[in-house]
Amino acid sequence: MRTLEWQAERGALRLIDQRALPSELRFIELTSAGEVAQAIREMTVRGAPAIGVAAAFGLALAARHSRANSTGELLSDLHSNAALLRAARPTAVNLGWAIDGTLRVARGAASGTVEDIRRRVLDEAQRLANEDVDTNRRMAAYGADLVRDGDTIIHHCNTGALAVVDYGTALGVVRAAHEQGKRVHVLVDETRPRLQGARLTAWELGELGIPYHIITDGAAGHFLHRGQVQLVLVGGDRVAANGDLANKIGTYMLALAARANRIPFYCVVPLSTIDHSCPDGSAIPIEERDPSEVLELEVHGQRVTPRAAQARNPAFDVTPNELVTAWVTERGIVRAPFAANLAHLLAQGGPA
Amino acid sequence: MRTLEWQAERGALRLIDQRALPSELRFIELTSAGEVAQAIREMTVRGAPAIGVAAAFGLALAARHSRANSTGELLSDLHSNAALLRAARPTAVNLGWAIDGTLRVARGAASGTVEDIRRRVLDEAQRLANEDVDTNRRMAAYGADLVRDGDTIIHHCNTGALAVVDYGTALGVVRAAHEQGKRVHVLVDETRPRLQGARLTAWELGELGIPYHIITDGAAGHFLHRGQVQLVLVGGDRVAANGDLANKIGTYMLALAARANRIPFYCVVPLSTIDHSCPDGSAIPIEERDPSEVLELEVHGQRVTPRAAQARNPAFDVTPNELVTAWVTERGIVRAPFAANLAHLLAQGGPA
Repeated sequence: MRTLEWQAERGALRLIDQRALPSELRFIELTSAGEVAQAIREMTVRGAPAIGVAAAFGLALAARHSRANSTGELLSDLHSNAALLRAARPTAVNLGWAIDGTLRVARGAASGTVEDIRRRVLDEAQRLANEDVDTNRRMAAYGADLVRDGDTIIHHCNTGALAVVDYGTALGVVRAAHEQGKRVHVLVDETRPRLQGARLTAWELGELGIPYHIITDGAAGHFLHRGQVQLVLVGGDRVAANGDLANKIGTYMLALAARANRIPFYCVVPLSTIDHSCPDGSAIPIEERDPSEVLELEVHGQRVTPRAAQARNPAFDVTPNELVTAWVTERGIVRAPFAANLAHLLAQGGPA
Repeated sequence: MRTLEWQAERGALRLIDQRALPSELRFIELTSAGEVAQAIREMTVRGAPAIGVAAAFGLALAARHSRANSTGELLSDLHSNAALLRAARPTAVNLGWAIDGTLRVARGAASGTVEDIRRRVLDEAQRLANEDVDTNRRMAAYGADLVRDGDTIIHHCNTGALAVVDYGTALGVVRAAHEQGKRVHVLVDETRPRLQGARLTAWELGELGIPYHIITDGAAGHFLHRGQVQLVLVGGDRVAANGDLANKIGTYMLALAARANRIPFYCVVPLSTIDHSCPDGSAIPIEERDPSEVLELEVHGQRVTPRAAQARNPAFDVTPNELVTAWVTERGIVRAPFAANLAHLLAQGGPA
């Protein structure tokens, strides 16, 4: 079961509605680029790779429903829908990457018919979806070598099948290690404010039969300091050219705690997450979401914050590259220093 | 209005029920040591100084209701009630300190009558309560010198009037700076799992008219890294002889983030929080509370964690002394290195 899947017979994109988990596994069907943009904004679909592929399908839906009579008109329609999709969330670079790639394919078909473009755009979205699954499995295979039998792993946010098309990035590594028969135990950062860890990662680990305990984000340091953790695994929303990592809020403090206790901190990201146009983390836009995500919290049916309370809600932070022990990609593991070693890896060629 | 206050006419200890805040300012009256122990365990009253004074009143209640016919019997009754109170929460040293001091007073009155001991124990509890308020005001005056006009302060957990008898420790410093006319802005760590920041600190700051924004605990690093914070203020539950600090879970990661960004990290604690019998932080017992505190979280009326989920819930962590820029006490400010400079401060005498 994929997190997102094209329904050919209905011409719709089917998503797992991640807002309903873990209490309900509910699906939602989207039939326009506008609906896809809304689903990305509201985090019905989330995770950098997943929103990239969703946006490509958003363009396929835009192409399908466009009333354009010429390829020029259709390309113009696609470009305006691309702007809408791109604006849905600013931090994850995979969104822009998937949109740019799909637009390139559409332009490449401009000498054909409107129908040609429609087919090529949908094919490209399908290809990106399949490639994502393949990429995840490659990363997981490389990453699993970093996990030893008996390890306890701290994991932040959700990077499982739900964050991608299928399998997962950082959680894919945990899954692959588990499938290899290694006994692993996960300390799941609950990941305030949206609680992707407590809701989604806990649910996925339960489904996979991997033992875990949820912890508050602030407790990670305690377990690291007490020597109870062997590695930290996170995904990424955008990696700058120097290796600085934008990822879910809280990642930076986790990386500092791992470093202070000499515990390896691994970032598992497809190469599409690297933004070569960003020299370093200071150039990465950080989304600030609605304060209500922080404030609307209830315990035993009672709202916990004062009625007049205000909040700040940055959704991501930047972890300086020197805190990342290694980046796990679909082409292999890149150890620090990032830029030089990434160039070396890419120059090698090897299985892409 | 004090967080806890003796009601002479009814022979009861009146507490603000902190579980009901911020939606309701409700009071609760306790009439036995057992009720006081339960209130401490369930965090109806919380904060290291507040639970110390509450325990002293617990002994006063035990003395009042004891059926002892001799001072020996009464002392024996007090010792068993002291054990009950002492076991209520293991980490904060003020609890044991207040109990030990009150028992010492009781023993000192053993040559008198049962009624003498009753009166002396109640007087001692009252004295501790008054001393606590005085201590807080002294700390606040020293600490306020560390705050400049226009500063943004990160604060963890609740250390305001609610955590003590009145005024506050770390939040007392904020309050004193505000009362001096300095414009301050507080980023309030929500402080999962019990949300003392989002519930109690936000409420207190609102009542005092001090501007604040609630943030998730994991967001503190982002604001520190972006240069938007000038100092960090926390309280403490137990300080080891070398200055290692046991405080609310999440403090350690906050201290690491402050250090990484060269932002001063101040710990505001009365001298009673220093446990000279603990050589360092590894000797401090860390309370692990019920997993339900982590798991029973709702958003829009819906429980967010899977039904079968498990959690780990350490209530405190230890911040190594080298991460603390200075400790603010009622006798003055102790800069690192702690042990030597504390000895120097105490040797000076000065206003106690």
